[in-house]
Amino acid sequence: MTVLRKHLFDLPEGVIYLDGNSLGPLPKSVGARLSSMIADEWGAQLIRGWNGAGWMDQPRRVGDRVASLIGASDGTVTMGDTLSIKVYQALDAALKMRPDRRKIVSDSGNFPTDLYMAGGLIRSLDKGHRLETPKPEDVIAAIDEDTAVVMLTQVDYRTGRLHDMAAISKLARDKGAVMIWDLAHSAGALPVDLAGSGCEFAVGCTYKYLNGGPGAPAFIYVRPDLAADVDPGLAGWLGHEAPFAFDIDYRPAPGVARMRVGTPPVMQMTALEEALGVWDGLDMQDVRAASIALQEVFIRQVEAKVPDLTLASPRDPATRGSQVSFAHPEGYAAMQALIARGVIGDFRAPDIMRFGFTPLFIDEDDVLAAADHVAAVFTDRLWDNPEFQKRAAVT
Amino acid sequence: MTVLRKHLFDLPEGVIYLDGNSLGPLPKSVGARLSSMIADEWGAQLIRGWNGAGWMDQPRRVGDRVASLIGASDGTVTMGDTLSIKVYQALDAALKMRPDRRKIVSDSGNFPTDLYMAGGLIRSLDKGHRLETPKPEDVIAAIDEDTAVVMLTQVDYRTGRLHDMAAISKLARDKGAVMIWDLAHSAGALPVDLAGSGCEFAVGCTYKYLNGGPGAPAFIYVRPDLAADVDPGLAGWLGHEAPFAFDIDYRPAPGVARMRVGTPPVMQMTALEEALGVWDGLDMQDVRAASIALQEVFIRQVEAKVPDLTLASPRDPATRGSQVSFAHPEGYAAMQALIARGVIGDFRAPDIMRFGFTPLFIDEDDVLAAADHVAAVFTDRLWDNPEFQKRAAVT
Repeated sequence: MTVLRKHLFDLPEGVIYLDGNSLGPLPKSVGARLSSMIADEWGAQLIRGWNGAGWMDQPRRVGDRVASLIGASDGTVTMGDTLSIKVYQALDAALKMRPDRRKIVSDSGNFPTDLYMAGGLIRSLDKGHRLETPKPEDVIAAIDEDTAVVMLTQVDYRTGRLHDMAAISKLARDKGAVMIWDLAHSAGALPVDLAGSGCEFAVGCTYKYLNGGPGAPAFIYVRPDLAADVDPGLAGWLGHEAPFAFDIDYRPAPGVARMRVGTPPVMQMTALEEALGVWDGLDMQDVRAASIALQEVFIRQVEAKVPDLTLASPRDPATRGSQVSFAHPEGYAAMQALIARGVIGDFRAPDIMRFGFTPLFIDEDDVLAAADHVAAVFTDRLWDNPEFQKRAAVT
Repeated sequence: MTVLRKHLFDLPEGVIYLDGNSLGPLPKSVGARLSSMIADEWGAQLIRGWNGAGWMDQPRRVGDRVASLIGASDGTVTMGDTLSIKVYQALDAALKMRPDRRKIVSDSGNFPTDLYMAGGLIRSLDKGHRLETPKPEDVIAAIDEDTAVVMLTQVDYRTGRLHDMAAISKLARDKGAVMIWDLAHSAGALPVDLAGSGCEFAVGCTYKYLNGGPGAPAFIYVRPDLAADVDPGLAGWLGHEAPFAFDIDYRPAPGVARMRVGTPPVMQMTALEEALGVWDGLDMQDVRAASIALQEVFIRQVEAKVPDLTLASPRDPATRGSQVSFAHPEGYAAMQALIARGVIGDFRAPDIMRFGFTPLFIDEDDVLAAADHVAAVFTDRLWDNPEFQKRAAVT
């Protein structure tokens, strides 16, 4: 079944957008929905909007929508804050669940903010925790009986390399470690069987494949049988059992709602809620199949046309997320030239040209055209031209 | 000089809005600005908006606008997250600055989330810190040589009682404690001399008097001479010295920018930036004078017309923020009846009817009319009527 729904997105003329893995494009209906939220809810209902317009319940409502895309049940996901904050929340709670262990296993391919947040928490706790960041392929060997937490991003942001969620979750469980998955590059990109993995926590963002817009709220999942025992470090009033009792003492809300912190960003939440409509009726298995088909065409075309480029993603699509990365020493300049031609991907230091495949709004014609532009860029080799170098230094 | 700028706000017909201290009303220009942000920035620029539309720099730019309203210098305030998160950040950093002390002094009038966040941090650190919450009038006596941090909200959310920022900050300094001010009910409500107070940290929200909309981002101030020594516990990538280097190791950004955490909520930030335009050319001294004048009229009128109501705010306007609270055993029902008449204030348990005075969009005619409605409500005494009780139980 085709998953192409280009007509639901506002895509600029002349652009082939292969960066939906960084910031998803604008779903057409979001602008009108946000205008009505502003005028008819904030403007007209004022403070009454919290109940009257359903703002207070939105993090749960939107959480259920996200849950359905990542293999989780209703009532196990809540929305808010940023992915960095949600990583911190999960890790803080996880460390409390394993008070006698000191090792956190992540990997060197994790997105830096996950590692920074872990480092910040370790410094604040000052109890001798240590963060290990082996290469992705060495993670399994690093998980042992001293491991408190395994914290991994399922899809490597640079290479697209896909961790085996079921196998690593099982290994962590066998070793007595708490498992936290970061689904930043998974949610909306590929089928995820979160409940089936048995992991304790998962977090993710919604501005990439879920098209929630710049700064869209993050999500957090807590395995439902554990939620009642989680002690939230970020104990905000909206995670209180009765926020409007204004008690001096904190009593966590039942379930994942205790992971709410402060006042939710209603505009971002409304934009996201509307944006999630593009997923109605889609099967993530179909999305995955379409993504792989596009990626395979792209790899084949680019490798045939530009032998200079080295595939930096796994060749086996079963171990790759929804992106394809190529390495080249002039990758930065090449990506600039490509963007100037209307093919938008992005660059990740030191030498990665990254292309995201989002089959809701990218089709095979786009991919073929993009590959032609890549070829043209490597024929032009503008980076050898002094004029281009001068311009690039300015911008 | 008059500060009335009613024409800049979209206020619903027939409503007298005395709840701008909870959620500010919609400034007229916000809707169009947000529509253009969505279509012309997100829609047209896509990922390029981070630089092209200035999204990346927005937390600093908006922070400078907020700084100018709270007596702080450019470059000392940054925006993001929620007030709860910012309280946590400040407190975590402050405790690290006083590693040998264990006492945190707040008060029983502080907004609960501040106390909950402190409790959550104390539980996570598990180092024997304790939170004291004396009555507001007993705070000064509680600050001693064992006090690591004094953490207070300047204006009491229930009563409007105003702490003496200069005197308490000086006392904290003299005792060697770190001072954190929560300006939730101060920013945009009264003149604040934050730099002059010498306090180390301040935090606040922008959806009340600053009219940023539901879920508008919070702010944090760090005294500039200290910022380079602050160790951020919430060490997010956007507080990194070079976020796009994607280093494995965390190096905090110079100055207050290290208190940024994750991806900023661009829609909320844009709405706030636009909303702050209503303050252009206003002097906070004039705003304060106008607010006090309105409050005094309200107190005089209500006390004359409804002797049943007990003033729950300080009588001396110099020790009161920008709100007036009255206590009554039937306060909840009375506020419901008042809202049904179009006079929107709010209720805070157990018996507080709270009215916010926001002279940018409330004038003396509004206040006189509101007082008449209060009188009518207490003449009607609908809460004695079984029909009303039945309806109230349903809604």
